[in-house]
Amino acid sequence: MQIAMVVYDRFTALDAVGPYEVLSRLPDAEVVFVAERPGPVRTDTGFLAVTADRALHEVTRPDIVVVAGGPGTLPQMENPALLEWLRAVDATSTWTTSVCSGSLLLAAAGLLRGRRATSHWGALEVLEQFGAEPTGERVVTDGKYVTAAGVSAGIDMALTLVGTLAGDEHAQTVQLLVEYDPQPPYDAGSPQKAPAHIVEAFHTRFSLT
Amino acid sequence: MQIAMVVYDRFTALDAVGPYEVLSRLPDAEVVFVAERPGPVRTDTGFLAVTADRALHEVTRPDIVVVAGGPGTLPQMENPALLEWLRAVDATSTWTTSVCSGSLLLAAAGLLRGRRATSHWGALEVLEQFGAEPTGERVVTDGKYVTAAGVSAGIDMALTLVGTLAGDEHAQTVQLLVEYDPQPPYDAGSPQKAPAHIVEAFHTRFSLT
Repeated sequence: MQIAMVVYDRFTALDAVGPYEVLSRLPDAEVVFVAERPGPVRTDTGFLAVTADRALHEVTRPDIVVVAGGPGTLPQMENPALLEWLRAVDATSTWTTSVCSGSLLLAAAGLLRGRRATSHWGALEVLEQFGAEPTGERVVTDGKYVTAAGVSAGIDMALTLVGTLAGDEHAQTVQLLVEYDPQPPYDAGSPQKAPAHIVEAFHTRFSLT
Repeated sequence: MQIAMVVYDRFTALDAVGPYEVLSRLPDAEVVFVAERPGPVRTDTGFLAVTADRALHEVTRPDIVVVAGGPGTLPQMENPALLEWLRAVDATSTWTTSVCSGSLLLAAAGLLRGRRATSHWGALEVLEQFGAEPTGERVVTDGKYVTAAGVSAGIDMALTLVGTLAGDEHAQTVQLLVEYDPQPPYDAGSPQKAPAHIVEAFHTRFSLT
């Protein structure tokens, strides 16, 4: 089972590495990091580079496609090479998935029209502009399209997929392997749960683009 | 504030990338991935390489040290270059931290003797052999030493550190940024919570070394 992790300049590392860590533990997984050009790809902070081992054109029939998000998403939404590749591999994929604003790339490729989907909470409106039906859920499955909310939600998405593909027991074993027993010291992980003034001030601290 | 992420051949990607994603959002963070030799470093699955931008000897006074774990830990426990570097930077660090079996490297360097610490649940016994006092907690702070349990626990550790360093509001904003509102589809993330037969069968599916 080939799993293509799609990355590009200024993607968010955890968007890709969360699901990679979980999906790579599927019994027959072959994971490949793929970008327009192979080689090191810098993440959004500039502090980290991840190697894309393959160019898009070298990966033609992945079973699972996982598109990471991040501030680099917006320019990629107008990159015909990437959008055409997404449409091409989607024609034969078993699962086409995304994390965070990666869903905007699926949407820009025309793959989410009329479908329920999610994205980073700050990007849900853009998703709607491309004809998707955004929901506030953390992991959304519509047919073979599975989209996850922001950044860390890709871990939950991947565990869900492992359960579907390899059974609950294997998924629980992977959860135990990565000791995913979350105990965040705060409860501010969604705009519904974070204190209102934190949500309001969010854009003064961070830009999503 | 310089944050050194220590990686080596066959480390576990999420051990490093979880805390990197959170700590890199500290207001004045400079994160540097560091390894014995700079260049691409392959993770435990073989499917992913992360670039170490600096060699150990180039990073001499990091404020925060984060040591990732993974199957590659065991050979590194006998690598004098790494252990000596850990002792040297610990002499001036503000925080010396680890994720997963990364704590075995701190312990092998002699830094956890008599200290409460944690590790991947499968590695707690080894930690004890090096004079640390293992606990079952997810994040353990003893003085300036902060150790996290397996793989995904580094995210919780990093959010705790961000709260300490930059205040609760900044930490909550980072949690909102990475949408860390965990909703795992199973509750099997620790040996206490996973079904007993899953824990028993664990080593037939995965080896930690």
